[in-house]
Amino acid sequence: MLELRLVQGSLLKKVLEAIRELVTDANFDCSGTGFSLQAMDSSHVALVALLLRSEGFEHYRCDRNLSMGMNLNNVSKMLRCAGNDDIVTIKADDGSDTVTFMFESPSQWILSHSVFFLYNFGQDKIADFEMKLMDIDSEHLGIPEAEYHAIVRMPSSEFARICKDLSSIGDTVVISVTKEGVKFSTKGDIGTANIVCRQNSTVDKPEEATIIEMKEPVTLTFALRYMNSFTKATPLSSTVSLSLSSELPIVVEYKIAEMGYIRFYLAPKIEDEEEDVKPQA
Amino acid sequence: MLELRLVQGSLLKKVLEAIRELVTDANFDCSGTGFSLQAMDSSHVALVALLLRSEGFEHYRCDRNLSMGMNLNNVSKMLRCAGNDDIVTIKADDGSDTVTFMFESPSQWILSHSVFFLYNFGQDKIADFEMKLMDIDSEHLGIPEAEYHAIVRMPSSEFARICKDLSSIGDTVVISVTKEGVKFSTKGDIGTANIVCRQNSTVDKPEEATIIEMKEPVTLTFALRYMNSFTKATPLSSTVSLSLSSELPIVVEYKIAEMGYIRFYLAPKIEDEEEDVKPQA
Amino acid sequence: MLELRLVQGSLLKKVLEAIRELVTDANFDCSGTGFSLQAMDSSHVALVALLLRSEGFEHYRCDRNLSMGMNLNNVSKMLRCAGNDDIVTIKADDGSDTVTFMFESPSQWILSHSVFFLYNFGQDKIADFEMKLMDIDSEHLGIPEAEYHAIVRMPSSEFARICKDLSSIGDTVVISVTKEGVKFSTKGDIGTANIVCRQNSTVDKPEEATIIEMKEPVTLTFALRYMNSFTKATPLSSTVSLSLSSELPIVVEYKIAEMGYIRFYLAPKIEDEEEDVKPQA
Repeated sequence: MLELRLVQGSLLKKVLEAIRELVTDANFDCSGTGFSLQAMDSSHVALVALLLRSEGFEHYRCDRNLSMGMNLNNVSKMLRCAGNDDIVTIKADDGSDTVTFMFESPSQWILSHSVFFLYNFGQDKIADFEMKLMDIDSEHLGIPEAEYHAIVRMPSSEFARICKDLSSIGDTVVISVTKEGVKFSTKGDIGTANIVCRQNSTVDKPEEATIIEMKEPVTLTFALRYMNSFTKATPLSSTVSLSLSSELPIVVEYKIAEMGYIRFYLAPKIEDEEEDVKPQA
Repeated sequence: MLELRLVQGSLLKKVLEAIRELVTDANFDCSGTGFSLQAMDSSHVALVALLLRSEGFEHYRCDRNLSMGMNLNNVSKMLRCAGNDDIVTIKADDGSDTVTFMFESPSQWILSHSVFFLYNFGQDKIADFEMKLMDIDSEHLGIPEAEYHAIVRMPSSEFARICKDLSSIGDTVVISVTKEGVKFSTKGDIGTANIVCRQNSTVDKPEEATIIEMKEPVTLTFALRYMNSFTKATPLSSTVSLSLSSELPIVVEYKIAEMGYIRFYLAPKIEDEEEDVKPQA
Repeated sequence: MLELRLVQGSLLKKVLEAIRELVTDANFDCSGTGFSLQAMDSSHVALVALLLRSEGFEHYRCDRNLSMGMNLNNVSKMLRCAGNDDIVTIKADDGSDTVTFMFESPSQWILSHSVFFLYNFGQDKIADFEMKLMDIDSEHLGIPEAEYHAIVRMPSSEFARICKDLSSIGDTVVISVTKEGVKFSTKGDIGTANIVCRQNSTVDKPEEATIIEMKEPVTLTFALRYMNSFTKATPLSSTVSLSLSSELPIVVEYKIAEMGYIRFYLAPKIEDEEEDVKPQA
């Protein structure tokens, strides 16, 4: 039996909004350590990895490992029915082919998880949504820990704004990291654009800092379309980190407060073939 | 001659927005007692009844009963030209085939209803819109007073949210009332949903209460499409009441502050034919 | 060499939004006295004239007169990448076929205009956008100073609201000015509308006044489509002035704080041919 209770239910809504543009169907994997997901986008170019650790849940019961295949648009439809302050509980019986999302308004205490007892003891409003699970073939890729040439940490809203702005000019972004800063460039029919963010750690609020850890300078090119998809995760975290190496996919990571992270992986485009839309894995 | 002056002109705008999705053309009936409308929706499934009592108007003059046929989209276009704080006056001469809507900004006193005198005595801005009336055939249905098995009073925004949420899952809603609460359920391709609202009268604000008056439990099924149309009236009132009987159409009523009401009537669907879209009257 | 630095960069964004619906491609003319533009709309019915005087810029260097042809949608795309508080610098080298827009966030002082020195001395974020210039044939029309029968100054938001409201009823607006006020009227399939604004100078805030300077009464008819385009300039100024003469195009002028103006010119329609869409110059 599975029963996961998350007081901050809006976080699940944000997680779904962050990944459902990229991934249509995916397996959510539950184990004793947490609730996770790993999936390729439909064109098999980008990879998304989600982890919500069990400690982050108010109540976490997972009797045996479970892989639940879901259509993310359908999950999103159901989660959109939860109020922003609702407590969300995910439930599945062993061997069942359905999952239940339960939403409770937070104002009052609840004695029972059974809807029918709620009439007497529970809250003013309670909703449960039951969804059929799907069988989804998926290979779980091992993602090796890697050393990166450069790691840039910056405000997530700034990164989102830059990707959006550059998209109005071109299709790809060249990211160049030096000790002093990170430069985002693009080129298109109407002209060229360069946006430079200087390293700065002397800001009032730590989440507004731009911090660069660099072993060697690195310059890589990526498809802006995917970068813009990744920035759907911006509401989850005030900062984003970009990990770059010349031989490796970039990792765009959004931490999820105390609980885990969403990481997006995207292979760089080979510069010579920049006109070719298909990235090189 | 007809001359109705409503200080809270925004109320008329809300009334129009509440009904124009359901009804295209309708007769507005004016008599000594008030301003009213009764109309079926175009598929003759739902009925809307509006009453604005004469006492609610600042000035109400109706020399003889008058039935004015109007296209509600055109009325809405004109009313959208009124500011939210404007005073609205509806005028029609006896035997005239036009109606005039006059909008005055509320800041100053006005001595004359004639536009031309306004230059000297009146307000800074005044607008009048004249619209052709239409001949509309309509039978006025007598709606008998009925006893209902159950009446649910609840926050109108909550009811609107529930109808909207369930629409993302299914096409019909099953409403079940027991002493303890009211349950809204639906079923669709992606799964099922149940939302339970418990009776609660011990809330801080009376308009947030959910109150159930019940003679016997009742369970009825309705098309969500119509329910969602009815909730366009939500801005008119902070509460809504649902009156249910197994043999009768549901009445969804929004009170209009001190003045009257909008009532929507919808026949339940017969459960066995749930797949059939056409409700049974 | 050209280098224009405007602290209030959002003003340029507003200027572009004000004219790009009307004009697609246009020459921006730079001289010692200022930055200006004059262009006809694509159907050669309306004329727009922009002036930003050199004194309004923080830094204004223009070594020789320069006419820079630009596609306004492309300029708008680039300017939308500027933050609302950004300082905008426009740069062009003599003989160059490109123009550069540079955006700096305003929080810090910047020592150099070179992007590459910025790493050491400059701001946290700096963006530069380079755009190809175009060759655009255009005749510069001399607009003679004229005496107008009537000049109406009124709140720009009120004028915008009136044009929008009347557009929901008809296609043309009749503007009648008398000593007491200005009347905007229209007629359409669904009815007629008249909006009267009385002269009032005794308001608390001068920008809310409606002031009429009149030598003789004047009544003219204009296409609402163009009037609505002109009101895109509303964010630039809290007041608008309408200059009318029976033999001349109307001038709809929005002052740009301390710096200059946008003026729109539109020929009146000849009343007898009101059904004919093409105005008479």
